[in-house]
Amino acid sequence: MLAKKATDNSHSQESSYFMGWQEYEKNPYDAMDNPSGIIQMGLAENQLCFDLLEQWLTRNKDAIQMRKDGESIFKELALFQDYNGLPSLKKELAAYMSKLRGDKVKFDPKKLVLTAGSTSANEILMFCLAEPGEAFLVPTPYYPGFDRDLKWRTGVEIVPIHCYSSNSFRITESAMEEAYQAAQNLNLKVKGVFITNPSNPLGTTMTADELDIIVAFAVSKTVHIVSDEVYSGTVFDSPTFTSLMSAVTDKNLENHSVWSRVHIVSSLSKDLGLPGFRIGMIYSNNETVVSSATKMSSFGLVSSQTQFLLANILGDREFTENYVEENGRRLKKRRETIVSWLDGFGIGCLEGNAGLFCWVDMRHLLSFNTFEAEMEIWMKILCDVGLNVSPGGSFHCSEPGWFRVCFANMSEEALVAAMRRIKAFVSSVVGVGEDCRNIHPGKRSLVCTID
Amino acid sequence: MLAKKATDNSHSQESSYFMGWQEYEKNPYDAMDNPSGIIQMGLAENQLCFDLLEQWLTRNKDAIQMRKDGESIFKELALFQDYNGLPSLKKELAAYMSKLRGDKVKFDPKKLVLTAGSTSANEILMFCLAEPGEAFLVPTPYYPGFDRDLKWRTGVEIVPIHCYSSNSFRITESAMEEAYQAAQNLNLKVKGVFITNPSNPLGTTMTADELDIIVAFAVSKTVHIVSDEVYSGTVFDSPTFTSLMSAVTDKNLENHSVWSRVHIVSSLSKDLGLPGFRIGMIYSNNETVVSSATKMSSFGLVSSQTQFLLANILGDREFTENYVEENGRRLKKRRETIVSWLDGFGIGCLEGNAGLFCWVDMRHLLSFNTFEAEMEIWMKILCDVGLNVSPGGSFHCSEPGWFRVCFANMSEEALVAAMRRIKAFVSSVVGVGEDCRNIHPGKRSLVCTID
Repeated sequence: MLAKKATDNSHSQESSYFMGWQEYEKNPYDAMDNPSGIIQMGLAENQLCFDLLEQWLTRNKDAIQMRKDGESIFKELALFQDYNGLPSLKKELAAYMSKLRGDKVKFDPKKLVLTAGSTSANEILMFCLAEPGEAFLVPTPYYPGFDRDLKWRTGVEIVPIHCYSSNSFRITESAMEEAYQAAQNLNLKVKGVFITNPSNPLGTTMTADELDIIVAFAVSKTVHIVSDEVYSGTVFDSPTFTSLMSAVTDKNLENHSVWSRVHIVSSLSKDLGLPGFRIGMIYSNNETVVSSATKMSSFGLVSSQTQFLLANILGDREFTENYVEENGRRLKKRRETIVSWLDGFGIGCLEGNAGLFCWVDMRHLLSFNTFEAEMEIWMKILCDVGLNVSPGGSFHCSEPGWFRVCFANMSEEALVAAMRRIKAFVSSVVGVGEDCRNIHPGKRSLVCTID
Repeated sequence: MLAKKATDNSHSQESSYFMGWQEYEKNPYDAMDNPSGIIQMGLAENQLCFDLLEQWLTRNKDAIQMRKDGESIFKELALFQDYNGLPSLKKELAAYMSKLRGDKVKFDPKKLVLTAGSTSANEILMFCLAEPGEAFLVPTPYYPGFDRDLKWRTGVEIVPIHCYSSNSFRITESAMEEAYQAAQNLNLKVKGVFITNPSNPLGTTMTADELDIIVAFAVSKTVHIVSDEVYSGTVFDSPTFTSLMSAVTDKNLENHSVWSRVHIVSSLSKDLGLPGFRIGMIYSNNETVVSSATKMSSFGLVSSQTQFLLANILGDREFTENYVEENGRRLKKRRETIVSWLDGFGIGCLEGNAGLFCWVDMRHLLSFNTFEAEMEIWMKILCDVGLNVSPGGSFHCSEPGWFRVCFANMSEEALVAAMRRIKAFVSSVVGVGEDCRNIHPGKRSLVCTID
């Protein structure tokens, strides 16, 4: 009596990525109350700069109290449900997007659609750009949630563009052609390429070469490009970030038909660390997409209370600029710490300059070069060692042995505890030093209920 | 290059219902600044009790400042994106739902799914209950937005259950059978009945007989019932409101298979007057639906900031109870005022006991008994008289000449201005008294751009 999508597993939430979260929820680490619990390193959350936001809120009470010039605008906000969004927020978001992209491209508030997080933004774009059964090409490794967000309710298919460690998982022309061919072989009409820049899980920004390849592909195949740039505010090191919008502008493609097939997704969840506030957005050069996506945003509008607060925070441009800089400094320092520790344990990371995570190479710890061996070691790390990191397989990585390890969602104390556990684990796997069970006394059968 | 649904008119927003809003936006009435502008009577907004909410906010600053026991919980809320929602809000919503239903049924927070408004809730239920091309039967007249919410992205079809003024637009067994037969004739599989109780636009609650007919139909045809009860907090007069959930409980159907085919939608947009905050919900007896809808709520989560505020407001149960009572008193008074005025102009209204609108009978003012004549008079009222009321045709009413007139979204002053205009208009139509152009001097061609 129910729809198939409500009863089958097409929501893709049975991936090890989400299962790791569930295990964590059952036994979360706490330094005082549950020191042997699981440490969450599977959540791309940014907790490093809340002091800055809290200080701002203390100085700007009107914004949080829904007051303007000392007067309550509660009624006005409570009633505001225009799907075009608060003009003040859209103006500031456009300015913020420009700023994060080095002011190389000017963003126009009229081309912006507000959505309840980027989850909704990505789905809306799929509804606008493709019919059920049509496909988007997505470079691997990619965020496991895309299997839900892009496919579940839209009926759109994802065809992977396989990327490999041999060239640091960079996109190549031949990989794109292969993916296109694979789609043809499956009788799937390709409607576009969907990229994540900066990449989740790689923690890297795309090179000019990669962007060139993607744009050239979209030109030659007459397809769309969606660029999910939710991590654009987390770039903390060179090379600087180049948005897809800059790439097409640099090539003077404003008058080419590809211009209206370029769509950007962003949000305030990663840079500002506000996933609970659900502020996502679509930026599109295509008027019909903007118009249709705005109507679709009815299914996930942002609370006007939250729109008002963020319009005020972003409107303090001096604060925002300082925040982005300080956030970058702290992320860089945090990454350097973890990379250097892991290096000391003989574990390498892909070189990265963005994001809230490292892409960690544990291939040498696998018993075999298979995804079964990757799952085996992941289960050990989750259940015995007590760390929820995310296996590369859940990101559709083409090679076993890579893991995404988040570093910005925890205190320094928890990070140290995590590193001690990894150190002991590595020693145990390579047969040297203490048994990890001495560090993490929980018995596997007690900790973990994954079959 | 775009999906069909992004380029055609399947979003249904070209209905006169939405066109009236657009006209209003171009020339909105303001007593001081634009006294000849259009008065908005097409918006089911509740502005009658903001003083109560404002007073509560003044007394409870912690709730609006994201503080708990004097401490800021900004960080905790900013990070909270669990699609299960804040337990404190769900607990209070369940208690509030029970209260509005006379505590006849106990609502369980575990069966509740939070959504970004009822717009999202209704769409999610369609995604869960029906495949594209399957149908729901919907009694007429019904809210024009359902053509977008239930159909647009889901591919679900609506088949009308035609109701008529002869029995005050009540649902009958034969009307349901006819609709079922009409669906069969169209080769549409019927998956359920979708009702709005209290009704928008009728402003009435369903009778026990109607609910009996609907439940019996769902039992005999083995189909779902979705009951949109977003107006449950606006019942201001007898008979008391009976929720679908009470109806099936009264019949001791908890162990019948129909129990798990009963789903309720609600929101805080109409009773508390908070459409901008986007707090909607699904309540379902079906575990699979609850689980799947919760996952789908990822596409429209409620801002945690707003969840926290409302958990606090509803958590003050004494306040909430008084609010509901006072809101009822004010709505009743407002309705009595407008009904009595209209009666004085020779215009009748369907007897009603709920909602933020009257269902107004202007059949005697039509030049012919057709929907063309209804549109003609609607255009006059909108463009010449300067009132945005909503024509029954946009609600798929089966008979021309009915209009929905909202009364709770305006000041008393604006209401008086609107009534003066109606009075003049009626006089002009029946050829007696002053010309409405004396009251509303705007030239039609200047005011209105609808073709």
